[in-house]
Amino acid sequence: MQKWEVVEGNLATPRGFRAAAVAAGIKKVAGALDVALVVSAAPDTVAAGVFTTNVAAAAPVLLSRQNLRTTQGHARAVIVNAGNANACTGRSGLRAAQETTRAVAQLLGIAPKQVLVASTGVIGVLLKHGLMLNQLPTLKDKLSIENASAVAQAIMTTDTFPKCCVLRTEVGGKAVHLAGVAKGAGMIQPRMATMLSCLTTDAAVPPALLQKMLRAAADASFNCVTVDGDTSTNDTLLLLASGLSQVVVKPKTRIAAHFQAGLTQLCEALARLIAKDGEGATKLVTVEVCRAKTLANAQRIARSIGNSPLVKTALAGSDPNWGRILCAAGYSGATFDPTTVDISVNGFFLCRKGLDAGFDEAAATRVLDQKELTVRVDLHQGKASARIWTCDLTHDYITINASYRT
Amino acid sequence: MQKWEVVEGNLATPRGFRAAAVAAGIKKVAGALDVALVVSAAPDTVAAGVFTTNVAAAAPVLLSRQNLRTTQGHARAVIVNAGNANACTGRSGLRAAQETTRAVAQLLGIAPKQVLVASTGVIGVLLKHGLMLNQLPTLKDKLSIENASAVAQAIMTTDTFPKCCVLRTEVGGKAVHLAGVAKGAGMIQPRMATMLSCLTTDAAVPPALLQKMLRAAADASFNCVTVDGDTSTNDTLLLLASGLSQVVVKPKTRIAAHFQAGLTQLCEALARLIAKDGEGATKLVTVEVCRAKTLANAQRIARSIGNSPLVKTALAGSDPNWGRILCAAGYSGATFDPTTVDISVNGFFLCRKGLDAGFDEAAATRVLDQKELTVRVDLHQGKASARIWTCDLTHDYITINASYRT
Repeated sequence: MQKWEVVEGNLATPRGFRAAAVAAGIKKVAGALDVALVVSAAPDTVAAGVFTTNVAAAAPVLLSRQNLRTTQGHARAVIVNAGNANACTGRSGLRAAQETTRAVAQLLGIAPKQVLVASTGVIGVLLKHGLMLNQLPTLKDKLSIENASAVAQAIMTTDTFPKCCVLRTEVGGKAVHLAGVAKGAGMIQPRMATMLSCLTTDAAVPPALLQKMLRAAADASFNCVTVDGDTSTNDTLLLLASGLSQVVVKPKTRIAAHFQAGLTQLCEALARLIAKDGEGATKLVTVEVCRAKTLANAQRIARSIGNSPLVKTALAGSDPNWGRILCAAGYSGATFDPTTVDISVNGFFLCRKGLDAGFDEAAATRVLDQKELTVRVDLHQGKASARIWTCDLTHDYITINASYRT
Repeated sequence: MQKWEVVEGNLATPRGFRAAAVAAGIKKVAGALDVALVVSAAPDTVAAGVFTTNVAAAAPVLLSRQNLRTTQGHARAVIVNAGNANACTGRSGLRAAQETTRAVAQLLGIAPKQVLVASTGVIGVLLKHGLMLNQLPTLKDKLSIENASAVAQAIMTTDTFPKCCVLRTEVGGKAVHLAGVAKGAGMIQPRMATMLSCLTTDAAVPPALLQKMLRAAADASFNCVTVDGDTSTNDTLLLLASGLSQVVVKPKTRIAAHFQAGLTQLCEALARLIAKDGEGATKLVTVEVCRAKTLANAQRIARSIGNSPLVKTALAGSDPNWGRILCAAGYSGATFDPTTVDISVNGFFLCRKGLDAGFDEAAATRVLDQKELTVRVDLHQGKASARIWTCDLTHDYITINASYRT
């Protein structure tokens, strides 16, 4: 089957979708895009979602989760805002989310349960959803394929660039597309989903299968990202499938495997962009742990290294302080023998068999000065491996977060 | 029984101890004290130790642990160096530690197994223990009660002030003392002990009881500190009991309870100093979680808040961003209902029943500008409580750690 290839486009490249974004005044910066609407023209559009596991889940998470349950995996529209997370806002927050989906439904002539909602921004402040409602007619007028390009911009908070990826393949001569946008930056360690990501496809996939595939893709991508170890109240990953490519994906078929591969590739591309754009980040860091005794051990070690402030500050300073990497592995909770561990960065060995590899300092610094680093920890103790994407920890993370709210 | 009171003094205030420190050239700064020796004159001095749980435990940890086992809880001397952790140094590192204890033993005319050793500093670099051996005769000549004051200084790495505390009580007309020094700063989340702390007492305590009491005190103090969530390879807490006060502590007596209270008070005082002097810290933060359903829930929530970079940067910036506190509680793994949670700082309420408490921003900032903050999270859901000491996260943490090694 033809490989998935990256193509130009946006969320409306898959057939059946239109989208737009407006500036509703929710973000502090005047004129900044902050509300986006994504709509599918296909009445039977299938939808799947993966959400935060945070106990203090936000109102939009609660409502979208409920709507997906009620419709058994169907939705026609997604309304997203940035600048306010509508989290820790109690009943008023839930009412704001409900009133928003109801207004969108009325506007589009569909049922309110067919509308999914997502929010990102400051926690604990009531969402002025009236500002959004005012803009809905404008938003509807602007719905188009071209205007869908603005969605990635509208969902940004402290992100420094919009994150979008579009994939294309052909199945039996028919083109199929997968598209997605995401935002990340801070409060990023999505245990079960990412901060906020919306995907579209024109493949035809039954709801249960779509949900299963989305979760598998999330586990292999967004759930492997950590910026600061903080799991958000709002993590939301949504996927709408219009079916208009006429390519039908059935369980346990070659087409299903192919679709899963594309979906995972899309999520992975967006996840890497989130790690690269971590708050204050100057380097995209991939932590690879291999030849561990068990998968759980490999995952624990990778996450422990990826979350260690000492490792991340050393990477920021291009300091080949491999002792901190072995130390973070050592307190991860995994059992292993430190005396067989090799540690390399971009193939340059800092540690062999648990000891200093006797490297040249200047050469190590040159390696660490690169903008993309792969920290490889080879345990030589088994067959399991795991991977985490993260970033370095710099002064700018502190600057951004010391006064985010005020 | 008379309360324990804080008095002036040092590690040699308990009867039977002498100590000294010298500059051996292990720290980079020329002339900086970096090696200390603590000696007990009592032949039957009892000793206890609590060590790191890190899989990559350092050579001095392995050797001290072994010596305590061999002697069944006895030791006469502790040799400590700062500037090099002797961790991830393999067989050469273990040999360096062994040769050091042997040389100290010969100098003092005791058995090598009666000498405990501890190291702190950079990981993965061979310790030039020859520099220490050269200084041993000088160190022995300087052993005195007065010179014991230099020990707290000698064990510092990125600490900004020496940490020492001395307690005194009377039992049946006899004075008993407890003294301790500690160092902290970075790589501090001592799961089973602290970075490096040495305690002395002149109470007479049987080995098994001393070990049990030391562990209990560590659990209630050092194990409740986190600076950055990194558990060191070298965490070591040692306690030598000379017995020369002639106050005998027997299991399950009132005196035992009194001694335990003093020991815990001493460890708590040192633990708070470690949190206060966390790398780059400007504020000492106590996180108190109360009325949780279970102790495990309370502890998880406290640790999650105490380790959240987003909470800690907000506290650095005096930003009353209580949503991040509730968010960190929410992803802690504890189960609770967010809608009954109150959050206050130094008694000033930011959140009531999971919602914004409607506070005055300027007043909140004034509260958060204080140098000691108690973040209190009241769940109203049970009877369990837990406490964690931590600090804020500032630019200086990044500056200190981006080039610590080089």
